Amino acid sequence: MNDLAHAGLGPRPFARWAGAEHEITPTPEALAWLNGRLGELTPTSPSAVDDVAVPASELPKPTRDALAAIVGAEHVDSSDETRLAHAGGQSYRDVMRRRLAQDVVVPDAVVRPASHEEVVAVLAVCHQHRIAVVPYGGGTSVVGGVEPVRARCYAVVTLDLARLDALIAFDRVSRTATFGAGVSGPRAEELLAAHGFTLGHVPQSFQRATIGGYAATRSAGQASAGYGRFDDLVVTTRIATPVGDLRLGTGTPNAAGPDLRALFVGSEGAFGVITEVSVRVRPVPAVRWYEMWALPSFSSALNVMRTLVQDGHSPDLFRLSDEPETEVALVLQGRSTARAVRLLSRLRGIRKPVFLLCGWEGGSESVDHRRRLVAPLLKKARGVSLGRKAGESWRRHRFNGPLQRDVLLDLGVLVETLETATTWTKLLDLYDGVRTALVESLTVEGVAPIVMAHVSHVYPTGASLYFTVMGRQEADGISQWGKAKAAASLAIVDVGATITHHHAVGRDHAPYLEAEVGEVGMKLLEATKNLLDPHGILNPGVLVPAPTPIPPPPRRAS
Amino acid sequence: MNDLAHAGLGPRPFARWAGAEHEITPTPEALAWLNGRLGELTPTSPSAVDDVAVPASELPKPTRDALAAIVGAEHVDSSDETRLAHAGGQSYRDVMRRRLAQDVVVPDAVVRPASHEEVVAVLAVCHQHRIAVVPYGGGTSVVGGVEPVRARCYAVVTLDLARLDALIAFDRVSRTATFGAGVSGPRAEELLAAHGFTLGHVPQSFQRATIGGYAATRSAGQASAGYGRFDDLVVTTRIATPVGDLRLGTGTPNAAGPDLRALFVGSEGAFGVITEVSVRVRPVPAVRWYEMWALPSFSSALNVMRTLVQDGHSPDLFRLSDEPETEVALVLQGRSTARAVRLLSRLRGIRKPVFLLCGWEGGSESVDHRRRLVAPLLKKARGVSLGRKAGESWRRHRFNGPLQRDVLLDLGVLVETLETATTWTKLLDLYDGVRTALVESLTVEGVAPIVMAHVSHVYPTGASLYFTVMGRQEADGISQWGKAKAAASLAIVDVGATITHHHAVGRDHAPYLEAEVGEVGMKLLEATKNLLDPHGILNPGVLVPAPTPIPPPPRRAS
Repeated sequence: MNDLAHAGLGPRPFARWAGAEHEITPTPEALAWLNGRLGELTPTSPSAVDDVAVPASELPKPTRDALAAIVGAEHVDSSDETRLAHAGGQSYRDVMRRRLAQDVVVPDAVVRPASHEEVVAVLAVCHQHRIAVVPYGGGTSVVGGVEPVRARCYAVVTLDLARLDALIAFDRVSRTATFGAGVSGPRAEELLAAHGFTLGHVPQSFQRATIGGYAATRSAGQASAGYGRFDDLVVTTRIATPVGDLRLGTGTPNAAGPDLRALFVGSEGAFGVITEVSVRVRPVPAVRWYEMWALPSFSSALNVMRTLVQDGHSPDLFRLSDEPETEVALVLQGRSTARAVRLLSRLRGIRKPVFLLCGWEGGSESVDHRRRLVAPLLKKARGVSLGRKAGESWRRHRFNGPLQRDVLLDLGVLVETLETATTWTKLLDLYDGVRTALVESLTVEGVAPIVMAHVSHVYPTGASLYFTVMGRQEADGISQWGKAKAAASLAIVDVGATITHHHAVGRDHAPYLEAEVGEVGMKLLEATKNLLDPHGILNPGVLVPAPTPIPPPPRRAS
Repeated sequence: MNDLAHAGLGPRPFARWAGAEHEITPTPEALAWLNGRLGELTPTSPSAVDDVAVPASELPKPTRDALAAIVGAEHVDSSDETRLAHAGGQSYRDVMRRRLAQDVVVPDAVVRPASHEEVVAVLAVCHQHRIAVVPYGGGTSVVGGVEPVRARCYAVVTLDLARLDALIAFDRVSRTATFGAGVSGPRAEELLAAHGFTLGHVPQSFQRATIGGYAATRSAGQASAGYGRFDDLVVTTRIATPVGDLRLGTGTPNAAGPDLRALFVGSEGAFGVITEVSVRVRPVPAVRWYEMWALPSFSSALNVMRTLVQDGHSPDLFRLSDEPETEVALVLQGRSTARAVRLLSRLRGIRKPVFLLCGWEGGSESVDHRRRLVAPLLKKARGVSLGRKAGESWRRHRFNGPLQRDVLLDLGVLVETLETATTWTKLLDLYDGVRTALVESLTVEGVAPIVMAHVSHVYPTGASLYFTVMGRQEADGISQWGKAKAAASLAIVDVGATITHHHAVGRDHAPYLEAEVGEVGMKLLEATKNLLDPHGILNPGVLVPAPTPIPPPPRRAS
């Protein structure tokens, strides 16, 4: 896999998720609907790579030589192309900066170690030379987690872990697999499939995200109800830090003091570099059965969902769209499908349907049995089955989000997502609070944005909420979204929900972390950082404020 | 509940688990069997309370006054009776010290706060006055976790949390309950039963252990396969530390940095005092179905067990005894039962049966369905169902371990347990290693000890092993066991297994913690301790070695 494709940088134009072969063309109906909702839009087009003036690398020569001695000169790469390919992640801000060729921040070099030992040696050099190190997996962070921030260091290198690409060990008896941190989602599945096994961890970023990134960000896959969050899948980890390395985990849960693995799962590269992860794996399921249902309302469907989850009858993937998201899905599916769904829904007295997706994976008897437990409850809640075809269609298109985003950005639409989670008790308050904040802050000249949401990760005690907004792009789209994001974040904090269910903190959520973990919690993060990274070279500004303070959160509009 | 009963101190004699009404009398068959295995034994009898010379309390008067101002003078208790009632926990060493009235260590006072705020204030005073604080729930630690160690402090108080005894909040929708840390297992169930709910966390120490203790030690209940370990049940926690307090958890898992709750679940009172815990609860199950099976051998039964767990078909309680433990169970059950079991087993060609206990809890359809998934696999492995009566009998007697221990100690038997866990792949190596170490180190004058084991906590990746030994008590029973425990611990470390699956580290496992978490892991614990407990007053010597430097003199209370 070459670096450009790896970082989502097609040859031309700059700043798209993937090459032209994956592009999506909006239908005339979808365009008409969008214009109906957002008014006439002004198309924009992304800058090309050549529009960005890449500054000269400031990596000091002694550092470059020391790093080259470890990983080989060709893997201390300061070419403009490679540095641009590592200019941040996939947040709206990151993407817009590339689209506008504005404030694009690149590392001084991209360093590619090939083993745990090389990572250890690279960290030792960077620690000694005071060079910031930004660990990098698939570059899919949507929270500013891979921005090459130099802080007070002499230079910043991006530590691309793509060469840690091996299945290091496979234990068929205990059903664990040990991967190098740089193994991507698809590659991990390919390596496991050779043994008849699967990891089953499928976040939307699956195509590029890596095992190390999953662990560093406490990722949750779409089928988290069945396979567990990535936290649940990690059995052991190996971590390199500037002051020594760690191997944590003994194969099962234990009571040997606090579970120190938890300090690194979610450490986002700020405490060390996760180089190896041993994960729980399962045999490839004989059956994957995804089916779609329509229900009468988001709030009533939430109750059914909760009951099923709490009684242990959740499908492995369980995903409920609210009314606006369902409407958009119907528009995208074309006129004849939409008409059929509306007709079916009306037969059950449903005026504005909401889509509930149920996915089961496993042996055929198990899947049958579990499906049979769910169907009666959905029917009792006036649900209408839209069948397996609709479910499978979702599954086929489930990685299309970033592609659709590119199309919408071209059309002049501001499009971004954010997510949170809370208890079932507070879920509708959270929903209302965030929705209101987004609508108010993104209404442009009287035109309200489209704000839609879904629940996609469920627990006995609560669930996640994932919002997508589409609004009119203003001239300064980055600060336009910044304000909306701040308003939504304050609404989240107000309810006492989490600032992030599965996107991680990065730099974007940093101002809201203290509200969640408290002053002493922040001090704990700082003490951990000070111990493991005394010179503050690791991903500066992530989890612990960088020496140059991050601006405080905006105050609420009164 | 009065303090004496609470601490397991019957009025006379000293050092028994409970009062006479619970006592167990061994049958003549059992006695004969025991003598057959261990030879003629020399009965011993425990000392009485009066045999212990209790030193005068050294709690400085200013400290006593400051503490009394917070909790009331009657709750700063320096009576001999109360201090003796808090002299350590329930390890063999602790029990033997009380039986022998030898090296009994008592705190200078027992302090009983009634609220989180009082705990905060007590910690502030003890921090300022350099007084060691040993948090105390039910006093059931079997690893020296509640020993009143003064270290280099001016005195040591035991912080008995029994008055934090409320169900603080109950959320029926999100199925969570918030308890004060001092609520005992039975009391929590009683409080929840009023709402039709259960926690379902039933360790062997259930009758006395507390919610706070469960959290502090990362407890695992007997039905952990169904209800989850206590780690899994904790939703939020509130913690008081000398430098401020924390509230951690937002109701669901999230990705807002590392899960800091994990630093306190398993912190054993060394980082702070857990004062409140919100836990996941479930409706009281309609059906509890426990049944016993006999299988041909420990090793083949392990394979069946593993397959069931990995395929998601584990009963909620799943417990496999090895051949020696099964033999002991048969002896204890009396001649006619044993004969029936042996007969049934022989019909299936089983010469030395092993007992496999399966327990299901839930709705009757769910229990039926899940039982039907298990039975064919057990039958295929030449298993014989011994029926529900045998299973229910186990459930009825499941808290009898400590009572049986008292009887055995009286008979002159050394009796103790230890536990560990590892991957399925390494489980039999671990079993052999620990067994050999115990047999070798406890063989007295050619008489081998009885070493038996069971698997009682299962995971897709591995399982726990719980050993019980019975040997001839030597004159110095404490150091006799100390050597055996050290040999077993080294065998555990050799395999790379965990030094403790659910008993915690305490002071007994402290020497083996570094082998498990590494040098950097130990430094992380130390950094956490230094931040939260800079004067080292909290449970000195637990998780982090007790301080060597002499603390500065206390400042005068102003």
